[in-house]
Amino acid sequence: MALHKEPQVITDKDQMRKWSRAMRSQGKTIALVPTMGYLHQGHLSLVKEAHKHAHVVAVSIYVNPSQFSPNEDLSTYPSDFHGDIQKLVSVPGGVDVVFHPYNLYDYGNGAKENVGDVGDGDDGVVSCIENSGLGHETWVRVQNLEKGLCGLSRPVFFRGVATIVTKLFNIVEPDVVVFGKKDYQQWRIIQRMVRDLDFSIEVIGSEVVRDSDGLAMSSRNVHLSPEEREKALSINKSLLRAKSAAEDGQVDCEKLRNLVIQCIAEAGGKIDYAEIVDQESLEKVEIIKNPVVFCIAALFGKVRLIDNMEMKL
Amino acid sequence: MALHKEPQVITDKDQMRKWSRAMRSQGKTIALVPTMGYLHQGHLSLVKEAHKHAHVVAVSIYVNPSQFSPNEDLSTYPSDFHGDIQKLVSVPGGVDVVFHPYNLYDYGNGAKENVGDVGDGDDGVVSCIENSGLGHETWVRVQNLEKGLCGLSRPVFFRGVATIVTKLFNIVEPDVVVFGKKDYQQWRIIQRMVRDLDFSIEVIGSEVVRDSDGLAMSSRNVHLSPEEREKALSINKSLLRAKSAAEDGQVDCEKLRNLVIQCIAEAGGKIDYAEIVDQESLEKVEIIKNPVVFCIAALFGKVRLIDNMEMKL
Repeated sequence: MALHKEPQVITDKDQMRKWSRAMRSQGKTIALVPTMGYLHQGHLSLVKEAHKHAHVVAVSIYVNPSQFSPNEDLSTYPSDFHGDIQKLVSVPGGVDVVFHPYNLYDYGNGAKENVGDVGDGDDGVVSCIENSGLGHETWVRVQNLEKGLCGLSRPVFFRGVATIVTKLFNIVEPDVVVFGKKDYQQWRIIQRMVRDLDFSIEVIGSEVVRDSDGLAMSSRNVHLSPEEREKALSINKSLLRAKSAAEDGQVDCEKLRNLVIQCIAEAGGKIDYAEIVDQESLEKVEIIKNPVVFCIAALFGKVRLIDNMEMKL
Repeated sequence: MALHKEPQVITDKDQMRKWSRAMRSQGKTIALVPTMGYLHQGHLSLVKEAHKHAHVVAVSIYVNPSQFSPNEDLSTYPSDFHGDIQKLVSVPGGVDVVFHPYNLYDYGNGAKENVGDVGDGDDGVVSCIENSGLGHETWVRVQNLEKGLCGLSRPVFFRGVATIVTKLFNIVEPDVVVFGKKDYQQWRIIQRMVRDLDFSIEVIGSEVVRDSDGLAMSSRNVHLSPEEREKALSINKSLLRAKSAAEDGQVDCEKLRNLVIQCIAEAGGKIDYAEIVDQESLEKVEIIKNPVVFCIAALFGKVRLIDNMEMKL
């Protein structure tokens, strides 16, 4: 039986930065895998990918309130810190550090200056942070990429993601960061943000990991009943069918979309969006010419699932 | 005559970061003084302040297009790079590096993915960058502090400032940054941004520097005719009068504001705003209880000047 490495758990952000700087001063490069915990094989594949790109690997486990609307599932977001650590220990090479802060929006005395409602932006966007009394009021926005797909039904989501990732970058100071391509729009937004804000960080996109039945791994899958899960398989099945059709020469996105929408609807899923978009700009495409990605969000029962498939001719 | 140190001039951002990291690996701390050039004694006072807080000093000289609206004075913003270097050489200790990039929004190949109009935000804010074809679309906003004072008449200004400062932070990676309190709202916004985004950077606010006649130093002063300059002295004079009245017990901000507004209007200035605000939150104050700052923006001819005065009871 192999020796398993227990990660160091750091909860304080100054300690976290101190650790990173100590690593850097030893000439070691640092990879960060940001997560919200309740880890599954998808996350572990990100850790494995991280090991390929840096000397040491840090995983952050933090459920970020600013990417949830007050009406979303922040309070029921699953967590299992002890289980997460065990899973990370099981990865070959383990991880060096788990950064597990309590509240990254609590600035101590500073917050007292600005207690209460910090209001909403000009565009009325409000997350679970605005009325926390913590006084956080700085937001990073990737103006175009955040607009479509998940951005339409989750108006605070990508603002919260870009902001917490910026904070984590400034705390962990990594050389490399690994995101899953299952959250395709998120991955592209972070890539663009890193470019536009001149972060000296390489952004790696790691392939979607699926269960043996084809369902893309997600922490939210745990909320699916067995029946809902069976129905949810229609997402991957229909995406594969669309990909196959595209490879056979079907370049009309309207037809490809209808194929997928019909299949998911027949299985009882409620579609939020099913769009074929350019892989870089995430703009809708009508006729496939350049590499595209078919992105889907659909509800099965109360569980919102997303998935996607890259398609080339 | 003392030996004067010529700064190293760096135009490439990767070279800039390399320099900073070399300094850091030698155990040296780095102070950054961000400027738009056309330096005056006010800027030089920031450099002197910077020397107190770090081993080495970098000055950035870059006229940031994203903080100008298309109808503002980007094209006529004064510049004198050669003169700037001479002035920096004259400061005791000089400066170690001048970072003078050509275009911090040109991402090379990346831009081709996204040529053309990147559109405006949900709030319709557009700067000199949006239609540049460079594809920059990531913005940092400090939601509340950016709203009032200069934010009212310059809707893109603080978004552009927070974004370029973030970029400079990520390129120069300083330990300390020095801003002038003449741009009071800007200073507070950067402080808040640094806190909210967890930058590991100390933000120093340096006192307003005035010419012997009392006019706050500004690169824009060069555009004032001798008559306009004479009239513009009403800003400082009236602020001093208000401060004196407050010290004598006048806590009614309406009365203090009227005193200043009348004095500037009589001199022929056109007031943009004259507000007494809390020093931390920048929220308007009616009765002075806590430390406040009296902030003014006024036009003399076509030249928009800002000034402020901190007041305590």
